[in-house]
Amino acid sequence: MANDANTVFDLVILGGGSGGYAAALRGAQLGLDVALIEKGKLGGTCLHNGCIPTKALLHAGEIADQARESEQFGVKATFEGIDIQAVHAYKDGVVSGLFKGLTGLLASRKVTIIEGEGKLSSPTSVDVAGRRVEGRHILLATGSVPRSLPGLEIDGDRIISSDHALTLDRVPKSAIVLGGGVIGVEFASAWKSFGTEVTVIEGLKHLVPAEDESSSKLLERAFRKRGIKFNLGTFFEKAEYTDTGVKVTLADGKTFEAEVLLVAIGRGPVSQGLGYEEQGVTVDRGFVQVDGEMRTGVPTISAVGDLVPTLQLAHVGFAEGILVAERLAGLPVVPIDYDGVPRVTYCHPEVASVGLTEAKAKEKYGDDQVVSLKYNLGGNGKSKILKTAGEIKLVQVKDGAVVGVHMVGDRMGEQIGEAQLIYNWEALPAEVAQLIHAHPTQNEALGEAHLALAGKPLHAHD
Amino acid sequence: MANDANTVFDLVILGGGSGGYAAALRGAQLGLDVALIEKGKLGGTCLHNGCIPTKALLHAGEIADQARESEQFGVKATFEGIDIQAVHAYKDGVVSGLFKGLTGLLASRKVTIIEGEGKLSSPTSVDVAGRRVEGRHILLATGSVPRSLPGLEIDGDRIISSDHALTLDRVPKSAIVLGGGVIGVEFASAWKSFGTEVTVIEGLKHLVPAEDESSSKLLERAFRKRGIKFNLGTFFEKAEYTDTGVKVTLADGKTFEAEVLLVAIGRGPVSQGLGYEEQGVTVDRGFVQVDGEMRTGVPTISAVGDLVPTLQLAHVGFAEGILVAERLAGLPVVPIDYDGVPRVTYCHPEVASVGLTEAKAKEKYGDDQVVSLKYNLGGNGKSKILKTAGEIKLVQVKDGAVVGVHMVGDRMGEQIGEAQLIYNWEALPAEVAQLIHAHPTQNEALGEAHLALAGKPLHAHD
Repeated sequence: MANDANTVFDLVILGGGSGGYAAALRGAQLGLDVALIEKGKLGGTCLHNGCIPTKALLHAGEIADQARESEQFGVKATFEGIDIQAVHAYKDGVVSGLFKGLTGLLASRKVTIIEGEGKLSSPTSVDVAGRRVEGRHILLATGSVPRSLPGLEIDGDRIISSDHALTLDRVPKSAIVLGGGVIGVEFASAWKSFGTEVTVIEGLKHLVPAEDESSSKLLERAFRKRGIKFNLGTFFEKAEYTDTGVKVTLADGKTFEAEVLLVAIGRGPVSQGLGYEEQGVTVDRGFVQVDGEMRTGVPTISAVGDLVPTLQLAHVGFAEGILVAERLAGLPVVPIDYDGVPRVTYCHPEVASVGLTEAKAKEKYGDDQVVSLKYNLGGNGKSKILKTAGEIKLVQVKDGAVVGVHMVGDRMGEQIGEAQLIYNWEALPAEVAQLIHAHPTQNEALGEAHLALAGKPLHAHD
Repeated sequence: MANDANTVFDLVILGGGSGGYAAALRGAQLGLDVALIEKGKLGGTCLHNGCIPTKALLHAGEIADQARESEQFGVKATFEGIDIQAVHAYKDGVVSGLFKGLTGLLASRKVTIIEGEGKLSSPTSVDVAGRRVEGRHILLATGSVPRSLPGLEIDGDRIISSDHALTLDRVPKSAIVLGGGVIGVEFASAWKSFGTEVTVIEGLKHLVPAEDESSSKLLERAFRKRGIKFNLGTFFEKAEYTDTGVKVTLADGKTFEAEVLLVAIGRGPVSQGLGYEEQGVTVDRGFVQVDGEMRTGVPTISAVGDLVPTLQLAHVGFAEGILVAERLAGLPVVPIDYDGVPRVTYCHPEVASVGLTEAKAKEKYGDDQVVSLKYNLGGNGKSKILKTAGEIKLVQVKDGAVVGVHMVGDRMGEQIGEAQLIYNWEALPAEVAQLIHAHPTQNEALGEAHLALAGKPLHAHD
């Protein structure tokens, strides 16, 4: 391969998703000469196949639900159905607007964009489109793709991944969602809003099993009320085609039939065939191994985002990418406290959390050293106005700081900003309680929860 | 008047609105024997004629707007109109649910509720319904009522106050809203959503004139786009009846006609004829004068809420009421920093702020000691999904803390929780910027604004 001898970049980034482009933007701002290599579209999974388009579907679902339920609010409106092509046009409009913004930003910071599928060819170079791109440092940010199970073949029509679900040309009459994690419950929620009969299959005991059990139970109650079916605690065995769709059999012999099967059992890292191991990078079950400052074992190579075994969240990718850029530019960096990263599931109702679940707090501090408090949104005026039910649960180290905030309810994901400050600044309940929250907001429920935890409940029983 | 000789309460509260009932709940919790006197319904203006019912109207308006605009999101729905009786039923349902909760709370804390119109009869007693209620301490919390102007008679049908607007039996075809403050723009917004042709008359230069000028301008732009008319900078002169409605003339001779005129020029304190001045309480232009711990000049009498010249907000009433209860119970109290109180105007789009406007910060710190930054919601994914425009403006003391946060955009009022923590905890931009905000939320716009102010913009140009 011919060397592109004229340029040695300060930083060559393989992958233009959240982690990669954040590193590019921050690196360029700090004066690094940056090349960003992307085989698809800049923005990656988050912008094109993940966060953004799913939230557009969910908002279209919200609009549909509100039209259906408009009478309850005194509004006369008739819901006639979903125009799925128009939903896609709306969703694609949002994506393309953000894509244009991102492309403009990268150009304005003079990041060199290289299109094509790159492969690590040495500790300081990536080969792409017949060209060798040299860098003093390499950042691996090749992200993830939807996973499947052995013997479960994704055909893109009846057995689909989230990628297909985002562009499906119809609203399925019925769907089985395999996996009750974040991706699964978000699609279940959007489809139900669109009119699909949905069943979620989750092998673990609860929906959103990574959340505090109380949040899982509240979501299950809400889904039950919405008519979203789910089967918990039994694993998937096999899927077969029927005349009209798919039949799923679980380990206990129970069967489910539907028009489509969405496989939403998680996302796996993209690290095969890219030369990583050949160049000495340690890969474990597909994940590139890194230290707290995102270094691989090879001094010139770092890795970030879904490719590494940290939380698979776009905002984690951003933060990891920024950390690498700042480290390479010689700025002091602090390893990320992953417990302090806010987590939001954007189904209806939303589930949001930061810090530790009660169970994890008890593991860490001891059973008798952890206190928790639940504040029901039934006492919150704005939530009543929105006709949403839910709860805020606070987990506190006895006489100490709030170490976990867990919330369920429509729009409650937006409360995670104040919650993460409380967690990250190690606030005592009384320190939050003494500050005035605006009435009537959903936000004041967070204030009231802290008032109650500080022993001075206002709109709540003692 | 016969003494009710058997009981001397620790605290007798005149008025069961936000300030009064918060003092009652907290006082009772701290062991005080509390009597709460209310002539109308417990909960006061906020619950029955203010915060809560207006937000229900605004949410019905949101539902109506979304049904009208559903096509943009791919949802086929037809908006047919507003069933105003059903809107009232929805609104009244929210109010009665919260009222039931409040009544239950007061009962469970064993607060003695006394119905009737009370009058201060000595520094330690209130006369009500033929009975003298004695207290070691008296809290005045008689609140406020809508104001009018000399010669402008509220008839309750064509010239109305916000009280009437909340129960109006029809959606007016056209309305003039006199006053572009919080109450005025909220009604203008809700009515426009219901289909009314609205014109707002504001004598000052801008809508929501207490807000940072940039917020006012953004709201004006959004109202213009929605077809809400407004006339700024000229004062009202007179109103006359026409055959079909009302004609308003301004000081410059300009006239406006509409079916109804809503007088929303503010609320005045209820302090006349209640014995306040006779017992030595200082009253200035109707407002009871208090110190930072809500004491009047009479040692046994305190006052809180809309009756005193602090911010007329329910959450200020709560905080002032709690402060009085805690002081009387012997707990240490800290005067409220009113600049740190979050302020939300719930129109479409919402306006929210905490801390100082840029102008006030410059007055306080000097013109060259204040820095400001604007983050446009056009770069925020979730705001694009919601199809809302707006901005976050941060005001910072040069190289110092964030002293003002000003936000415009649908649902942005809910971001005020994180914003008030930032203000009240005197955070530096870099301290907020280093914390991870969830993608894709509106909340992350607050994170991005702080990233930009800290000199490390992510999704924003340098």
